[in-house]
Amino acid sequence: MALAPENQPLKEIPPKAADLSAWYTAVCIKAELVSYSPVRGCVVLRPYGFGLWENLQKELDARFKATGHENAYFPLLIPESLLTKEADHVEGFAPEVAWVTHGGSEKLTERLAIRPTSEVIIGTMYAQWVESYRDLPILINQWANVLRWEKATRPFLRTMEFLWQEGHTAHANAAEAREETLRMLEVYREFAETVAAIPVYSGAKSASERFPGAVETYSIEALMPDGKALQSATSHDLGQNFSKAYDIDFTDADGLIKHAYTTSWGMSWRMLGAMIMTHGDDRGLRIPPKLAPVEAVFVPIVRGGDDRAVQRAKELAAALRIEGFRVRVDDRDETPGYKYAHWELRGVPVRIEIGPRDVDAQNVVLVRRDKTRGDDDHKTVVSENALAGALRVALDGVHATLHAQALEFLGSHTFVLQDRAAFFAACKNRDGMIDIAWCGRAECEAHVKAETSATTRNTHPLRGGETTCIACGEPATQRAYFAQSY
Amino acid sequence: MALAPENQPLKEIPPKAADLSAWYTAVCIKAELVSYSPVRGCVVLRPYGFGLWENLQKELDARFKATGHENAYFPLLIPESLLTKEADHVEGFAPEVAWVTHGGSEKLTERLAIRPTSEVIIGTMYAQWVESYRDLPILINQWANVLRWEKATRPFLRTMEFLWQEGHTAHANAAEAREETLRMLEVYREFAETVAAIPVYSGAKSASERFPGAVETYSIEALMPDGKALQSATSHDLGQNFSKAYDIDFTDADGLIKHAYTTSWGMSWRMLGAMIMTHGDDRGLRIPPKLAPVEAVFVPIVRGGDDRAVQRAKELAAALRIEGFRVRVDDRDETPGYKYAHWELRGVPVRIEIGPRDVDAQNVVLVRRDKTRGDDDHKTVVSENALAGALRVALDGVHATLHAQALEFLGSHTFVLQDRAAFFAACKNRDGMIDIAWCGRAECEAHVKAETSATTRNTHPLRGGETTCIACGEPATQRAYFAQSY
Repeated sequence: MALAPENQPLKEIPPKAADLSAWYTAVCIKAELVSYSPVRGCVVLRPYGFGLWENLQKELDARFKATGHENAYFPLLIPESLLTKEADHVEGFAPEVAWVTHGGSEKLTERLAIRPTSEVIIGTMYAQWVESYRDLPILINQWANVLRWEKATRPFLRTMEFLWQEGHTAHANAAEAREETLRMLEVYREFAETVAAIPVYSGAKSASERFPGAVETYSIEALMPDGKALQSATSHDLGQNFSKAYDIDFTDADGLIKHAYTTSWGMSWRMLGAMIMTHGDDRGLRIPPKLAPVEAVFVPIVRGGDDRAVQRAKELAAALRIEGFRVRVDDRDETPGYKYAHWELRGVPVRIEIGPRDVDAQNVVLVRRDKTRGDDDHKTVVSENALAGALRVALDGVHATLHAQALEFLGSHTFVLQDRAAFFAACKNRDGMIDIAWCGRAECEAHVKAETSATTRNTHPLRGGETTCIACGEPATQRAYFAQSY
Repeated sequence: MALAPENQPLKEIPPKAADLSAWYTAVCIKAELVSYSPVRGCVVLRPYGFGLWENLQKELDARFKATGHENAYFPLLIPESLLTKEADHVEGFAPEVAWVTHGGSEKLTERLAIRPTSEVIIGTMYAQWVESYRDLPILINQWANVLRWEKATRPFLRTMEFLWQEGHTAHANAAEAREETLRMLEVYREFAETVAAIPVYSGAKSASERFPGAVETYSIEALMPDGKALQSATSHDLGQNFSKAYDIDFTDADGLIKHAYTTSWGMSWRMLGAMIMTHGDDRGLRIPPKLAPVEAVFVPIVRGGDDRAVQRAKELAAALRIEGFRVRVDDRDETPGYKYAHWELRGVPVRIEIGPRDVDAQNVVLVRRDKTRGDDDHKTVVSENALAGALRVALDGVHATLHAQALEFLGSHTFVLQDRAAFFAACKNRDGMIDIAWCGRAECEAHVKAETSATTRNTHPLRGGETTCIACGEPATQRAYFAQSY
């Protein structure tokens, strides 16, 4: 049959700066993260890509459990009559829903939606489970596939089916629900920075960018190399909107029957798209070590039939695995140069070279993916018995570089503007995150969007001294980051 | 709103021996493993039930990785035209498929099936990925939800949507594929015995019980307390049936283009149903320690305002967590008796009692869930500083008891019969696993099924000396376990 793109001879990926979109697609395919599938809008997450997702899951799941949450699993299918109970919610999601109308050869009496998100089915269950204030809070997370009808397909960024987690909590009062919403926003921010090495702006969305049915939506927003923002996770305070629609009521300590306050919050495999675009370079991926399926790869060098380095690499790899490192030995019958390019494309943070002379000297050579020839610390000779410690240091170093470079980019592409014309020009030019004093009005936002394609990403408090909205001249009530976005 | 069944006052669950089915449903609901959902055929896996699934996943996933497999994720939806390429497969699954016909308000030009299993979509991708013998074997597993149209709903045993794993591999020759099929069968058998504490019979299914499209299907079969067998996992040698239908071909070392040999193998949350039925008793669940979300629960006893035991329990629990134990402290404002019943219902393997006098003596009391009042080793007084070791011993002891009791049951309910009338009577009576010399003919099997409702569960080789099929008198070619089944 025809060769799939990833099986065609490895060609140079296009330079990242020249065409981010072409670079992105090439890297996703050639690094074997994903394959396009015969199902429109759906991609296959291949083992190396799934390895990224497993590490994201492990890191995020530990944070959810540390903040008191438990996992559960709710049905994929939602009856149409249930979905339509919360008016804003159904209006927001109905155009994106895939409908099941037949089971076997039987036509259903009621259509079933494939979940685009699970507030509806989870709210319905919470209504059954909650009776008194003693049953609150409920703190549940679900790892699941969801589906939203899409025409376009862009790996991780825009697909019909995607993997995500969705947290859903119910509380006895508004303050607790708000606290939870902000707690999980902070979990996402901290994860983005310390695991994915991506600095983000976190804040509240404007009213028009809120989740359908939410009282307040918060997000973390990253800035991509093309100057477009990427919303990387959201956390919603749903107030009593869903508890009223789905009857989540309880007897409070004062004996009165009240509606609960609910929240929901999610991060999807989109985060991996942000990671790829933020850190990659012209040689391919650069994966932050905590997400890397392979933290270090041994490339043993065989010279004139002397293959002692292969055996030694396997022994050293086994020792590192016991210490908890994710390592591989590439003992394929290929040239070192081929292997270097192979693993650089795949973004492995550290390469460990070992040849016959290294075996004699009981050394190895660590090569960091974040460094290039000419950098002082590109290669380090390390004694075998100091390898684990040196590898830890090297991995921490790679994370630090990736984060510092991304932070430098975000900082140098965030513009605090005071001038209306400059603001509109910066939005139109995709200069980055444009930070202005803002009026908070939907009309103003709509006007900016129509003129420049930029929208508010999220908002933050006035610093003091701002009086008027830079975009329209009305009184300023807050600050907002404007940017074009994915 | 109306109280859900699990929120109604805790009533005695019915005795297990009197009505297994009523006992089973009551335990699943009252122990808060599952809730029925508003979606016909679908249940919610609640946090405590999901905790069981997480432990199953962790244990099984480690075994898959140790045998060289990687995880990946494939699309939920399968175009109808793809599904129909393998004739036996589509015939077997078409009646069970849920069909998506609309996306948003748009009617689709081709219907999409929600995966009932993923051979089709995965085979299609393997065809793209495989080019030469160097690309083989492919060893991939997927953790996923699948959907098969069902009228009945029985938690874990029979639901429309269920969680499972499905392994899919491709190999260069028939011998390797068969070896893989048998390797994974053995992984399942070993998991059943050493993790779920369930002894099983493993062997090949008869031709009529094969997976649609398989050359050979193997299974592990457990025996439930009502004398019915429960198929707990299957492993399929698919030969070249799927590689021919989906064009998984490759250039072999000899330069010839050949079809690959594929396998698939799966275990679902059904295994949890087997575990519940096998081990539970009139007080509720008895969970084998390796699957237990909570291995041990502290019940501190407060006497006359002396609540030092609560603080001490928390300290001891923290120390045990550092040692890797999954423990909880029940410091709710309820009586000890209420708490004992609560955790016994939930099958926690070990209870740790601690009162003021224990605090003074620096002791705790371990109470094993597999023992009852009167047993010598029901309660053990343990010094605080010996707690971790004693808990390990107690947990191992609980596993050993559960396995031994299940093995005793399986052994005493396996009947090696030589007589036709006795065989038919035993099948009809649901006496257990009825082991006979068998002809292997589908007609014979169909006759037994029509007369007794029993089917072959799986087969094993003749021991030697058998000449005729006990069921029909034709020449015997193998031995088979017959039983009625779930």
